[in-house]
Amino acid sequence: MAGSVFGEVFRISTWGESHGPALGVVVDGCPAGIPLSGEDFTEAMARRAPGQTKYATPRSETDTVEILSGVFEGKTTGTPISLVIRNTSQRSGDYSEVAGYYRPGHADFTFDAKYGFRDYRGGGRSSGRETAARVAAGCVAGKLLAGLGVDTTAYVKQIGPYCCRKNVYQDGIVPSREQIEAGPLRMPDEEASAQAEEYLAGLMEEGDSAGGVIECIVTGVPAGIGEPVFDKLDARLGQAIFSIGAVKGVEIGDGFHVAEARGSENNDGFIPTEDGVGKTANRAGGILGGISDGNPIVLRAAFKPTPSIRKEQQTVNRKGEAVSISVKGRHDPVIVPRAVVVVEAMVNLVLADLMLIGLSTRMEDITNYYVKN
Amino acid sequence: MAGSVFGEVFRISTWGESHGPALGVVVDGCPAGIPLSGEDFTEAMARRAPGQTKYATPRSETDTVEILSGVFEGKTTGTPISLVIRNTSQRSGDYSEVAGYYRPGHADFTFDAKYGFRDYRGGGRSSGRETAARVAAGCVAGKLLAGLGVDTTAYVKQIGPYCCRKNVYQDGIVPSREQIEAGPLRMPDEEASAQAEEYLAGLMEEGDSAGGVIECIVTGVPAGIGEPVFDKLDARLGQAIFSIGAVKGVEIGDGFHVAEARGSENNDGFIPTEDGVGKTANRAGGILGGISDGNPIVLRAAFKPTPSIRKEQQTVNRKGEAVSISVKGRHDPVIVPRAVVVVEAMVNLVLADLMLIGLSTRMEDITNYYVKN
Amino acid sequence: MAGSVFGEVFRISTWGESHGPALGVVVDGCPAGIPLSGEDFTEAMARRAPGQTKYATPRSETDTVEILSGVFEGKTTGTPISLVIRNTSQRSGDYSEVAGYYRPGHADFTFDAKYGFRDYRGGGRSSGRETAARVAAGCVAGKLLAGLGVDTTAYVKQIGPYCCRKNVYQDGIVPSREQIEAGPLRMPDEEASAQAEEYLAGLMEEGDSAGGVIECIVTGVPAGIGEPVFDKLDARLGQAIFSIGAVKGVEIGDGFHVAEARGSENNDGFIPTEDGVGKTANRAGGILGGISDGNPIVLRAAFKPTPSIRKEQQTVNRKGEAVSISVKGRHDPVIVPRAVVVVEAMVNLVLADLMLIGLSTRMEDITNYYVKN
Amino acid sequence: MAGSVFGEVFRISTWGESHGPALGVVVDGCPAGIPLSGEDFTEAMARRAPGQTKYATPRSETDTVEILSGVFEGKTTGTPISLVIRNTSQRSGDYSEVAGYYRPGHADFTFDAKYGFRDYRGGGRSSGRETAARVAAGCVAGKLLAGLGVDTTAYVKQIGPYCCRKNVYQDGIVPSREQIEAGPLRMPDEEASAQAEEYLAGLMEEGDSAGGVIECIVTGVPAGIGEPVFDKLDARLGQAIFSIGAVKGVEIGDGFHVAEARGSENNDGFIPTEDGVGKTANRAGGILGGISDGNPIVLRAAFKPTPSIRKEQQTVNRKGEAVSISVKGRHDPVIVPRAVVVVEAMVNLVLADLMLIGLSTRMEDITNYYVKN
Repeated sequence: MAGSVFGEVFRISTWGESHGPALGVVVDGCPAGIPLSGEDFTEAMARRAPGQTKYATPRSETDTVEILSGVFEGKTTGTPISLVIRNTSQRSGDYSEVAGYYRPGHADFTFDAKYGFRDYRGGGRSSGRETAARVAAGCVAGKLLAGLGVDTTAYVKQIGPYCCRKNVYQDGIVPSREQIEAGPLRMPDEEASAQAEEYLAGLMEEGDSAGGVIECIVTGVPAGIGEPVFDKLDARLGQAIFSIGAVKGVEIGDGFHVAEARGSENNDGFIPTEDGVGKTANRAGGILGGISDGNPIVLRAAFKPTPSIRKEQQTVNRKGEAVSISVKGRHDPVIVPRAVVVVEAMVNLVLADLMLIGLSTRMEDITNYYVKN
Repeated sequence: MAGSVFGEVFRISTWGESHGPALGVVVDGCPAGIPLSGEDFTEAMARRAPGQTKYATPRSETDTVEILSGVFEGKTTGTPISLVIRNTSQRSGDYSEVAGYYRPGHADFTFDAKYGFRDYRGGGRSSGRETAARVAAGCVAGKLLAGLGVDTTAYVKQIGPYCCRKNVYQDGIVPSREQIEAGPLRMPDEEASAQAEEYLAGLMEEGDSAGGVIECIVTGVPAGIGEPVFDKLDARLGQAIFSIGAVKGVEIGDGFHVAEARGSENNDGFIPTEDGVGKTANRAGGILGGISDGNPIVLRAAFKPTPSIRKEQQTVNRKGEAVSISVKGRHDPVIVPRAVVVVEAMVNLVLADLMLIGLSTRMEDITNYYVKN
Repeated sequence: MAGSVFGEVFRISTWGESHGPALGVVVDGCPAGIPLSGEDFTEAMARRAPGQTKYATPRSETDTVEILSGVFEGKTTGTPISLVIRNTSQRSGDYSEVAGYYRPGHADFTFDAKYGFRDYRGGGRSSGRETAARVAAGCVAGKLLAGLGVDTTAYVKQIGPYCCRKNVYQDGIVPSREQIEAGPLRMPDEEASAQAEEYLAGLMEEGDSAGGVIECIVTGVPAGIGEPVFDKLDARLGQAIFSIGAVKGVEIGDGFHVAEARGSENNDGFIPTEDGVGKTANRAGGILGGISDGNPIVLRAAFKPTPSIRKEQQTVNRKGEAVSISVKGRHDPVIVPRAVVVVEAMVNLVLADLMLIGLSTRMEDITNYYVKN
Repeated sequence: MAGSVFGEVFRISTWGESHGPALGVVVDGCPAGIPLSGEDFTEAMARRAPGQTKYATPRSETDTVEILSGVFEGKTTGTPISLVIRNTSQRSGDYSEVAGYYRPGHADFTFDAKYGFRDYRGGGRSSGRETAARVAAGCVAGKLLAGLGVDTTAYVKQIGPYCCRKNVYQDGIVPSREQIEAGPLRMPDEEASAQAEEYLAGLMEEGDSAGGVIECIVTGVPAGIGEPVFDKLDARLGQAIFSIGAVKGVEIGDGFHVAEARGSENNDGFIPTEDGVGKTANRAGGILGGISDGNPIVLRAAFKPTPSIRKEQQTVNRKGEAVSISVKGRHDPVIVPRAVVVVEAMVNLVLADLMLIGLSTRMEDITNYYVKN
């Protein structure tokens, strides 16, 4: 309700501020019997962590995930999994100046408007660092989904005006993790990546920043996942992705292009396949009527440029006076590459929840479950 | 959970199929003391109803909303408001053919995959007619919001490739209800509307259909509405809008354009105003860090073309055989104009919920409330 | 949240006032494929209905349940089931006097304190008539549970000081429906029933009323139902039973007697059985650590005497003046026999919800489900 | 859903096993501006902690509460408050034997039945130690309630057959904290306490255990708190109290005695008072129609005897063989005195939640809030 709980059956509760002692998440509703250890978090946490490249803040957080409950003898027990990530690199002194004014593009003003005051150290709860807890929870969801054959892959599609070639996914082949991780920007298109690097170099010189687009492909989701009406798979994905701080747009399948298409173009035709029903195309992005159709789920999210810039900006201080500021400290000129793993985490959290909810759909299956068990 | 409940404090539960006896909604959590009568629904229901123009199905549903509970002596009592809309025009015979195959672009296949069978009459629960219940609930939310000075206006921004002139809203003036309702397409730009009409005429001749974009502006939302992290105002709006059947993309403020902008361009500067803090621009669409900043909320949604088209399509029947079909019956060549009021309803439902949730934000206010009462 | 929604996966939303046009409930989350028709409600609705005996108000409500959605070709579709019961016998004139003062033992004062005004006709939302919607929803839950081998039986254990013989259940045999329905009080003990009838006759003469105790036994619940900590099976049953208007006490198994027992007496010993693990006794009432242990669930609820009595009482009117009143109109001298079916309904609603939630407990089962489907 | 989340607006998520590294809770939805520090937890945690007297296990846990988020400059920020309590005294070796069989009266068997395996160390998630997290969360709720004039007091009413004198509360005066803490059993009646001590001495000699009854009085709750129908104040209290492991019965006000009372005796008459409406008695325990009536809330809970006893018991091991056991290790002969603070915590969590929910009851108040802010 107050915003830090997500999911209905696979339900997480995150907590933590950028400069408090730690961040974390409690995962309630994870089924028993999933192998889980600290190592399951290492790769994803490292992909989100700062300090990886020159495009990311040099803050050298190791972001080790400590499991405090819910795992016994290497397997989940079905009871809440508490995950904690210590903040090891915070330096509160860096942010004292920020306390006095409202940074443009940040939540400083809106938090003050809502709560009357705020933890101003590094953005407090509105810091991008909050996503560390989501990524940790996403790893647990990912383990559950891996057992069900579901695989989620996100990558950077665009930075500033530089976009991967059209067929980076459209040919049906999902870029591999190796292709995505090959460059510093997680753009699986060497040419576009090189152009984006040049673009970023220019912006860094000017003390400015860039936005971009992340695309995410999920394979292996069986047909029939998602609920009609308000908990449509796309609706829950929409909430999940828009809940990532910098996102200003979300598309499923053909997205905004559908506005210009004709029905005869936009409808994916059904065709017989060996194991049932296939489609001639996937303009719907794997979702029809809010329910998965067995094709890959395809979504894109637009991220705004990092609001923290060195370049001078006009703003207002807490006394209501106009002031001119230059945001100091360590800030990514582009956060999009680091957000790739956050998108994957949020998508996995939605899918884990909806796949567990989907277990209660048919009386026949329920009868079989309780009769045989 | 199963998809037909929406909201946490202002919580609705919708029900009903296209060709059942009725549709409706229960609104739980509406505060006591709001004047409400059947007339409060008339205009909105009429704007959603079919049969208004040549671009809408001729089904002449009156869509009268009957209040069965929760209102006493003309005011809401604080207990659940049950609203029922009778289906008066359904003709089940029309749809018998549809039972046997999967219409492309529809939820026929995914409902069968999920539930094992479906109410095939007119799309059953996945019919656009389901939105009648949302519009009715949205009217109750709208009455609450009107009392708080909040005003929500949506209109058609684009149909097919024809788009309203850029400054239809960008100049800061929200198009008036009169301007929006002047033409048959709810496009507050005469020239674009005329072009779109011509475009639609061509499509109707070919038995084809069009999509479009709806823009929605909300004024009067105070700064401080929305919750951090997962229940951000934009996240909840994202879920709400993506839950409308045909939506494939949602944008807040500058939306996908932020990907190409620089931080220095995209950040709205803060400026002192008479009554506090204003902004030099509203690229953020009135939301920072998931919380309203006191500026108009701006969002857009992309709607796919009506999937039901007369034009021949390839598909599969329930036996898994390839068949060629032409969807008969009454279908809108474009549903976007009728969806305008659905977008307004969903936005109002989100705002009513988050504004009620916002009441529990500050201890000082809570103490005042309980001490004085 | 606002009180009329119950359950998480099998979730109901009730609505309606005593003297409005109708009452009803929306059942969301009922699995697809359960046979359901209007006749499934007839018996239960009749058992709750007034006018059955001289101990019940003569109001001759037929209480027919109309299914407005969620059922197609005789089976549930998985989408919301809307059930409506018309109020056919209300006479608003009867209650005009009540508007002016606060009936002792009723919610008149507390509703006014909460909402500032109330629908005073027949108690409005706080009327016992509200339970008709619960019973209707309980029938749907009951159909689901019947398919899983679960059977719920409640009966009157005690009226005033007259109690069924100790072994009416303690011998392990659940009283049959015939035994329960044999007398007018649903007490499956002829002698106690006769004494209670005499007791009631005396009270009716004095314009007074009686309370009582209902016992409920559920057989067929497999071991493993219920969640640890806050959603324990007994905790959810506790909420469910206390949510029935007149209930002031709830016991599971040995209930308050455990306070005086020793651990060595109170612990049920485990013993090997043919199909697993049994117990030497069932003092725990079928629940250990909040989770069913495979034995019958046993609970009792204490109901206060009907607060509406003809006998003169002291109270206060809305102006705050002391007044003396005699509650007129049709009122049951004891509501306990009619509440039997309400207890069964609430128990079934809890079990249906927790058994659906229980589907997502083990990864192995989930994998089997999604791999084979 | 999976059982470790409680509350709707003031929502907690607890986690932790008896012998894991730590236990804790995330409190989401706590308003901003409440002074909070580690010291606010000290007294309550000590009252729950083991090792206080000879009637409690000698395990010397200090149970220090560490605040990891949600507090800044000594005040709550409105964002999640993460509280962690390290397990410092666990010795896994103690419990290895327990892994192989099912202790009577414990959740060993039901956890295995539900999840397929369990963390057997000290009861794992089903350990009474789990309540440490509830008490910590209850302290936060208590701070909120203190600001609203609400005061919650629980004490031991009965141990085994020994009960405090009838008027320990009935005279309207709540026993003071000093009176309650004066003896080792938290029984504010010297004579009964002495008898109970003697009774316990005998049981300890025999390796047996005792149960008891806790009574809880809440003063200062204004009239109008609680929601109609399912979220009645008594229903939510019922869930909360039954969620405490050993509770088998709950009463509100006169509880089970109402079954034998007449309506004319049981109804509390209303009377005019200086500041509104009072009552001639409080048999209802401060709740009418599920909503507080301004009088003290009165509830009682029956606790079963500690199931862990040294005395020999019959049970079954995981292979399904009959075995005879004697539960070794440190166990309280009676847990009731330590549970006093757990009851207070659960009551406070319910009240904090319902009082925050109550803020959205009346349109007039909501308008005032948003117009003035």
